[in-house]
Amino acid sequence: MVTVKRLVLDVLKPHQPGALYFCQHIARLGDDYQVCLSVEEVDENTQTLQLEIRGASIVLESIEKAIAEMGASLHSIDLVEVHNEADKP
Amino acid sequence: MVTVKRLVLDVLKPHQPGALYFCQHIARLGDDYQVCLSVEEVDENTQTLQLEIRGASIVLESIEKAIAEMGASLHSIDLVEVHNEADKP
Amino acid sequence: MVTVKRLVLDVLKPHQPGALYFCQHIARLGDDYQVCLSVEEVDENTQTLQLEIRGASIVLESIEKAIAEMGASLHSIDLVEVHNEADKP
Amino acid sequence: MVTVKRLVLDVLKPHQPGALYFCQHIARLGDDYQVCLSVEEVDENTQTLQLEIRGASIVLESIEKAIAEMGASLHSIDLVEVHNEADKP
Amino acid sequence: MVTVKRLVLDVLKPHQPGALYFCQHIARLGDDYQVCLSVEEVDENTQTLQLEIRGASIVLESIEKAIAEMGASLHSIDLVEVHNEADKP
Amino acid sequence: MVTVKRLVLDVLKPHQPGALYFCQHIARLGDDYQVCLSVEEVDENTQTLQLEIRGASIVLESIEKAIAEMGASLHSIDLVEVHNEADKP
Amino acid sequence: MVTVKRLVLDVLKPHQPGALYFCQHIARLGDDYQVCLSVEEVDENTQTLQLEIRGASIVLESIEKAIAEMGASLHSIDLVEVHNEADKP
Repeated sequence: MVTVKRLVLDVLKPHQPGALYFCQHIARLGDDYQVCLSVEEVDENTQTLQLEIRGASIVLESIEKAIAEMGASLHSIDLVEVHNEADKP
Repeated sequence: MVTVKRLVLDVLKPHQPGALYFCQHIARLGDDYQVCLSVEEVDENTQTLQLEIRGASIVLESIEKAIAEMGASLHSIDLVEVHNEADKP
Repeated sequence: MVTVKRLVLDVLKPHQPGALYFCQHIARLGDDYQVCLSVEEVDENTQTLQLEIRGASIVLESIEKAIAEMGASLHSIDLVEVHNEADKP
Repeated sequence: MVTVKRLVLDVLKPHQPGALYFCQHIARLGDDYQVCLSVEEVDENTQTLQLEIRGASIVLESIEKAIAEMGASLHSIDLVEVHNEADKP
Repeated sequence: MVTVKRLVLDVLKPHQPGALYFCQHIARLGDDYQVCLSVEEVDENTQTLQLEIRGASIVLESIEKAIAEMGASLHSIDLVEVHNEADKP
Repeated sequence: MVTVKRLVLDVLKPHQPGALYFCQHIARLGDDYQVCLSVEEVDENTQTLQLEIRGASIVLESIEKAIAEMGASLHSIDLVEVHNEADKP
Repeated sequence: MVTVKRLVLDVLKPHQPGALYFCQHIARLGDDYQVCLSVEEVDENTQTLQLEIRGASIVLESIEKAIAEMGASLHSIDLVEVHNEADKP
């Protein structure tokens, strides 16, 4: 089974919701997600974030949806790491 | 449960209270907090600090409040790391 | 037996299919592949990717074929690591 | 209990007492102190030092006093690391 | 006994044979060879490679011969590591 | 007890005695000394050395004396590391 | 006993003998020597090498002699590491 282990996303978000809320909201999407958000650039109305998500089986679709629901936009996917692992019986 | 494991904050503070008191005061807010304060820039009346806080479950609100009470201001949140962990029964 | 353990490929792909699909598709080609895709450059119609593939015995031919089938082109092979190992009886 | 684990101090001292004596004198202030002194700059009458002190529970006041008694001045505190640890019963 | 454990070679090769074949062919020369080929520069008709070979007892002569047979030339030896080890009885 | 664990010294020495003799002579001063000498600069009549000495309890005085006896001069002490350790009964 | 554990030598040698032979010849001088030769610069008639030798008890004299016998010259000693160790009874 091919699963996504790590994503690095480049995200543009308005100042609200704040970085902490944003990060916690993404982490809630997977029950073992570890999310690290770093603010790369701050403009008058927006912030450019790098969002790194690690987990045993990350689902990009729900993350994209959550980003959009918070008024932010996924600028680009900078890194994807996937593993093909034997299925456990 | 989603908990905050690490915060890196950019803080502007007056010279008083000093860096040591400032740092100890933040550490007192959580019973396992590890706080590392580094002075990035010194001006006539202010200091720019980077404040890194690690803990099992960091609460940003109380840190923000403490920063304000000491006459400093939280300039920006530079990094947030959160983990989603299974709740222990 | 000489087996390929690591490949680093420089790939030019159109925006579609997206990086995640691209990466998962490559990973499916070998049952222990670990694939890390990073986006190096984004132009109007194309993306330049670095694709790193690790596995116990990587087959370049099937990867080349999959890259072409997704409308992308293998620009160059930047790194190849091969090991000569005793055959297990 | 909140204790100081690491301090990095920027110190200006006259050439006498020498770096070794200076360093030993600071180390004597705490029975597990590890002190690393590096000379950053040498001028005609003074030396600029970086002084890093590690210990289980560092007391800044006595260090400041010792620095002053040796004719040097604490220019700035560059880094403070404090931990909040459970008190042992 | 003095044995060669690591070689780093600077090689100029035509585009054909490709990097993968080139690398596999070198690895076949010693039954524990690990070969890492990285492409340093690409010109119209040639590629400059760095070839790193590790093994318990590398034989340069056969590597030189194989390089020449594939139409490439050994530009220089950049690194040699040899160990003198007690002979096993 | 406060003991010196590491010293980094900046030394100016004439070409004779050579680096190896110089280094061995310093190492003889303490029965667990590890001395690493690197030549930083070579002029017509002199060499500038960095001398790093590690040991359980380094004595600077004897090192200074040995440096002078070999016709060299201790230019500066660049780093001192001292530990305060409980005395063994 | 004071023994030499590591030497880094700057050597100028003619193109012949080649780097591999040169390196093997040095390694033969001590029965546990590990020698790493890297070519720093290549001129028309000469090569500048960095030669790093590790061993339990390196003898510089025999290395110097071997370098000279191969028509090369020891330009400088860049690093010497010596340890003072208790003699085994």
